[in-house]
Order: sequence, then C-alpha cells, then structure tokens
Amino acid sequence: MAFNEQRRNDGQPLDGGVYAAVCAKADAAARAQAGLAQASTEVKDALLHAMADALSDHADRIAAANGEDMREAREAGMDEGKLDRLNFTVERIGACAEGVRHVSSLPDPIGQVVRGYTLPNGLRLTQVRVPLGVIGMIYEARPNVTVDVASLCLKSGNAAILRGGHEARRTNAATIEVIANALADHGFDPALVDSVDEFGRDGATAMMQARGHIDVLIPRGGAGLIRAVVTNSTVPVIETGSGNVHVYVDAGADLDMAIPIVVNAKTQRVGVCNAAEKLVVHRAVADAFLPMIAQALANHGVELRADEEAFDIISDAQIRGLRMSHAVREDWDTEYLDLTMGVKVVGSLQEAIDHINAHSTGHTESIVSRDYEAIESFTRRIDSAVVMVNASTRFTDGGVFGFGAELGISTQKLHARGPMGLQEMTSTKWIGYGSGQVRE
Amino acid sequence: MAFNEQRRNDGQPLDGGVYAAVCAKADAAARAQAGLAQASTEVKDALLHAMADALSDHADRIAAANGEDMREAREAGMDEGKLDRLNFTVERIGACAEGVRHVSSLPDPIGQVVRGYTLPNGLRLTQVRVPLGVIGMIYEARPNVTVDVASLCLKSGNAAILRGGHEARRTNAATIEVIANALADHGFDPALVDSVDEFGRDGATAMMQARGHIDVLIPRGGAGLIRAVVTNSTVPVIETGSGNVHVYVDAGADLDMAIPIVVNAKTQRVGVCNAAEKLVVHRAVADAFLPMIAQALANHGVELRADEEAFDIISDAQIRGLRMSHAVREDWDTEYLDLTMGVKVVGSLQEAIDHINAHSTGHTESIVSRDYEAIESFTRRIDSAVVMVNASTRFTDGGVFGFGAELGISTQKLHARGPMGLQEMTSTKWIGYGSGQVRE
Repeated sequence: MAFNEQRRNDGQPLDGGVYAAVCAKADAAARAQAGLAQASTEVKDALLHAMADALSDHADRIAAANGEDMREAREAGMDEGKLDRLNFTVERIGACAEGVRHVSSLPDPIGQVVRGYTLPNGLRLTQVRVPLGVIGMIYEARPNVTVDVASLCLKSGNAAILRGGHEARRTNAATIEVIANALADHGFDPALVDSVDEFGRDGATAMMQARGHIDVLIPRGGAGLIRAVVTNSTVPVIETGSGNVHVYVDAGADLDMAIPIVVNAKTQRVGVCNAAEKLVVHRAVADAFLPMIAQALANHGVELRADEEAFDIISDAQIRGLRMSHAVREDWDTEYLDLTMGVKVVGSLQEAIDHINAHSTGHTESIVSRDYEAIESFTRRIDSAVVMVNASTRFTDGGVFGFGAELGISTQKLHARGPMGLQEMTSTKWIGYGSGQVRE
Repeated sequence: MAFNEQRRNDGQPLDGGVYAAVCAKADAAARAQAGLAQASTEVKDALLHAMADALSDHADRIAAANGEDMREAREAGMDEGKLDRLNFTVERIGACAEGVRHVSSLPDPIGQVVRGYTLPNGLRLTQVRVPLGVIGMIYEARPNVTVDVASLCLKSGNAAILRGGHEARRTNAATIEVIANALADHGFDPALVDSVDEFGRDGATAMMQARGHIDVLIPRGGAGLIRAVVTNSTVPVIETGSGNVHVYVDAGADLDMAIPIVVNAKTQRVGVCNAAEKLVVHRAVADAFLPMIAQALANHGVELRADEEAFDIISDAQIRGLRMSHAVREDWDTEYLDLTMGVKVVGSLQEAIDHINAHSTGHTESIVSRDYEAIESFTRRIDSAVVMVNASTRFTDGGVFGFGAELGISTQKLHARGPMGLQEMTSTKWIGYGSGQVRE
C-alpha cells in the first residue's frame, strides 16, 4: 500500500526523496531478510558469535566515535543521566558483545510448531513461527540498544531498520559498520541491519509512513517519542515503556515484607519504567505501616506526595528528614522517574483496584498480602501487563524473565504484552498438507 | 491518550460531540467488560444460549427490519451480490442463532496458561490469556457479522463496539436490541454490545481516533474500507481480508489432481477472499496442463487473462466457449472477486515464488506438486498467512479451521495471521507469585 503524500510530525510535507530512500533501505532489508529467514539456527548462531567478536575487536573504534558524541553532548549541556546512557566505553561494548553471545545461546523460536491438527477431510494443518520481517526501531541516544536490537532481530530471522538518537549518531554509525562487516564476512547482506540516521528527523517520519515496507515499528524511549510514533505511524506499532507503577499494601499484608518491597521497587533503580511511582495502602494498616515506610523511604531520599489521609498520619509520626507535600490530582497520572512517590490510602481492595486501573499505564503493579482472596481478586482484576504478588515491581524485565536482551516492554494488548524477547519478534504461518482436497 | 482534534477521512474536523459520544460508549463498554472478564465459562455459555434463543424468538422482528433495509437498498440500486449479503431472513437468523450455540460449545481461551516457570530466586511466573478489552468492528452491510462478532466477543470476555454498513442499519439496530435484552436478562450490562450507527460515517471516524478507549479496531469488508481504516486509525488495527490468491501448478504436479483444485479454488464460491485469482504454471507442464484447465474453467464460465506464453498455448488448443484476453501489468495485482483468472507461465519454482511474493496480498497460496523439495521450498519461502499443499485455497476459513464463527482473516503479521477465532481475541497477562523477593 503506497501513500501519495507523506507528512512530517509538524504537518509539513515530507521530502519525497527521504521517503523513497527509507523505503529503498527497507525493501533491501526485506530482500535480505527473505534469505535470513531460511538460515538454520546453527548459521544464525555462528553469525552472532562473529558479530560479538567483531564488536570486541573494534571496541576501540566504536568507543572513539562515542567519545566525539559524548564531547558534543556535554558541550550542548546534556544532563548527567542522559550522558551516562550515551556513554559507550570499551568495557560497556564488551558487555554488549557478551549479551550477543547470550542471545545466540537462547532457543530459536523460528520453525516452532505453535499448534496443529488434522481436519475431518484429512487436511493436516500446522501453525509455525516465522519472522515478522522488517522491524523498525526508533529510540533515543542509547548505543547499547543498537546492539541489543540487531542481535535479537538477527536471531529471530528479522531485518532491522534503526533510527537512534541524533546525539549518538557517530557511535551508532561505527557500531552498524562493524555489524555490517560481520554480516558480509558471513555471506549475509549488510542491508539486514541498516540505519536512517543520515536523514535526521525526516528519517523517523518516513519510517512511520513506510507501511508495506516496514512490518512493525517499535518506539523505545520517553513518553513524547512514543506518543509521536503512535499518533503518526501508519505502520503497525508496538507501544512500549511508560510505567506509572503501583505497589498496593493490603489489609492482609505482612508489613515487614512490605517495607523492603516498596523500598526496592522505588529506589533500587530510579528513572526506569518498572520502578514504582505510587504506594496505595489499605486503611486497616495505614496507621501502622505509613510511619514505618515513610521513615524507610526518607532514609533513601524519597520525597512523598501524599493524599490528605496519608499526609495526616505521616505528619503525626514526625519522620526524620522526610520531604512531603500534598498530592494534587495530576500526581496520580504522573510517572516521576525520580525519587518521588505518591501515597494514597484506600478503604477497600476494590477501591485500590479501581484507582490503579484508572491511573496505571498498564505496565506493572504489585500487591503485598497474605490473604488468598485478596490476591486472587487483585491478580484477576488488575488490567496490566504484569501483576506481582509479594515481590518488587523491578522484576518486570526481559533479562529477569529469561528472554536474554529485551526489545522493550509492551504496554499495549495487541501482539505482545510485557517484556518482548525473541518469541515476541515472530509471526506465524499456517501450512495445510493435503492430498487433493477441495471444498464441497 | 487523548487527542485534541479529530479529523474525518476527508480531512475535515470531526464533530467533537460525536467523538465524545463514541468514547462514552466505549468507556461504558470497558466498564461492563471488566465484569464480563471475571465471568466463568459456564455463565458466559449460558448467556450465549439465551442470546441464541432470543434471536430465534425475535427472528420475525429482525427480519421485518431487514425487509425495510432491503426495500430501500433495492430502490437505491444495490447489486444482487450485495443484496444477497444484506438479506437476513428468518431462516438465516436461525442459522446465525445456531452459530451462537456452536460458539458456546467451543473451549474458552480465557485463563489458559500460555507458559510459566519459576525464576532462580523462587518467583513463580505464569502468562495467562485475558480478553483484549473493547473490540471495535467496522464492517459492511452484512447483518450476520453483527451476530458473529457479538458472540465471539462475549465468549472471549470482550466488549464490542460495532459500526455496520449504513444500508443494514435497521437490521443491525433490531439485532443489537435483541442481544441487549438478552444481556440485561442475564444480569449483564447491555453496554457490552453497542453500535455507533446512529452517528453515520462520523461514528466510524470517531472509532478510529478513540485510542485509549477502544483496544483494537478490525475493519472487515472491501479493500477501500480496510485502507481507510489502516490509514486513519490511531487505534491499533488488525488488517483483514483482501486476497490476491495464487495456485501454483509445479513441474512435479499430478495434473489430474490440479484440475479440480484450481476449479474449486476459483469457482466454488466467487467474490470471497480465499477464492483463487491467479494460476501460475511451470513451463515443464504448461503445454499439457493449460489446455485442460482452460477447458475446465471455460466450462465454469471463467474468463482468462493470460500472459503471452499462456495465451499462445491456450489459443492453439482452440477451447470451446473460452473468453480470454492478454493480461496487462495491473492484472497481477488485482483481486477480481468474479469469474476472472490471471494465468502466468514461469520457468522455475523460484520464479513462481518470487512472482507470488511480489504480487500476493499475503492471504493464501497453494502448490500442487508431488515433489518433496519443491513443496518444502514453497511452504518455507512463500510469505503468506496460509500455504496449502495439494488442496484448494478455499479452506482458509475460521469455520473450516475449527474456530467456530470467525472475526475475519488477518493478512498482517502482527498479533494474528490467518483466520481469527476466539484465541486471536485475547491478550495475555503475566502474574508473578513471590514471597518477598526484591531485586539486588
């Protein structure tokens, strides 16, 4: 399906030359992918090992390109958190190469039979896993994503068209050159992993319009990036990432267990999508629990935004070093991504569930309870990709789930939900083996 | 995610009142769906039986409404094929009711454990099937789709927001009223199955923009409808339907088997997406096969559009009653949906595969051959939802596949590919059962 006119995010017509060039890259990737789709697991694994070796061998060159990106970003005033994510040292490149070797050790989903049966007329049906085709990835300035996505795509028989953050363009170009050489050395078409960074923002816009050329588009990054892709793309999108994550401490909770879970969920790593942003506490344990958790969170430098009831209980307890303010309506829908936590008291399990389902982004929620019925109700009624019971929300992660590197965490319900690994990068094909059957 | 401004297909701003009203219906459906998602299979099956009984009991009333739609459509000059699809007689309503009973007899996908395992830290993970949520369906004037979609949605725990063809609006309104009454009689919220027909085309446009309110949108109908939805929707779409379907007769084919397969694929039912549109024949058997199949197809009134080589072979054979013309470039990409068939001669299996992959809509292709290697290569390399071996393409059908009624046939790779039944109307949720685990 072709489109006569492409438009950019800002409503201006897109340069037709850029659109044509991006489609040409995607079509070359598709042709190369048709070959990769037929490659055996052995051949793909050997390719990944060669790619890992090449990344290690050329780590100096990639790190040098990254040094230039880092210098420019620092001069442009990039904040420390982003600088840290952009930084791609020889050591980090080595860890990425190790990740590629790990992906090669994972089971190959391609060719798996999902289901199969024989129809009454003797037609034998099997549904088998096949690659998705050409996967487009739009992400921010995190060079490790380039390597992770390339390795997951190649293992699952897919091609990758990449648009990384502008600030990482030299690093990504050097990385993709190393990968392309490894592909060519193994008799594969380097078009399997290609970048549209050379076209700047228009490259990303062209990807969004390249329906029929790119099979699926995965944005990975901040809420603004994801929203822009979701709004503008005619290519099917898998929405990832944003996490307004809740921990609910039930009337039946083991409060001694709840404290480390809440502290871990909030503070073990800040600024990630599976970190908790909200604490919801049942009124029956609020008087006992809130002062304890407020002290524990204050010890970790967490600032609280409390509803009126929680504010009063915690204020009365006079916690040392605590920063706390009254929550406003917007707090309940905010993903802070820093050392801030919203706190709310509820009168019932049902109120907790309703509040969470109304405000969650559908990523991960956790219940702390010893009450079987409460746990059953919470796990059944909470409408999120992952529901934890008596465990930290930080476990929602492809690596933790055993997927190897992950492509992102899907917060939509279509195709994939939760961490996306190799299996989520596949489609299926039905094959019907007959002996002359026709329909009556 | 809300959008500040909605636009119609024609680029004009959408009436904000219509958008708000459609979102309100979808939100009411979502609230009702949260309840249905908790209903046991027994309860849902009893509801479907009650719905089937109500359809039978009120068949007269629905048929009367359909009579008015039929009269108006006839006066407006609707063609016979469309009139036949619009026609919803007491007998057809009874058959639909029987279909609802059949859906109630199918296994319930909700709650199925897809996979599960225990992490090294003792966290026990299970991935279970859950409903998608609110399913939006945009379709043409075929009243049976209203019943099929409602029954499949309810069985799989989903709510349905329907936009049927304008020409069937009285029939659909009467049908939905009967379903709503059955829902209410069984203690369910009638908002579970609702229509936006009252808003005309703007209702469909509003559905396409109702991201965050409708979870997935499925267009079912002609290529124009599907293209409009795919282009304009910000709600995730499952693309269905169009079928430029090929039968390939290989050098190793049993020609006596090939004739009934080609004739059945082309003529058993015309105007459906799994009917064959193109015949591709290996040069090694072209002289022997083309005159035979041309005669067989001519006997069924099929007109041929042949490439030069096929044209010459068939012309030489002087087939009785055959209509044939030279194929033009557009033929290879055309879904005729009538008694027309394109015919092409290829010099190799690879040429056949390349031609099909270049021109197919990815629905269904069939190979006729006795050659193991040719079959292996064809089934692996053809990039379509269904690949048949020595069987008619007409078997690509949810009913034939054992899915009961079907929601359509997906020709995209994301989420569902091929016939969509109950399982394709589900998402999944991960549940992690812990005992205080936190991340190190």
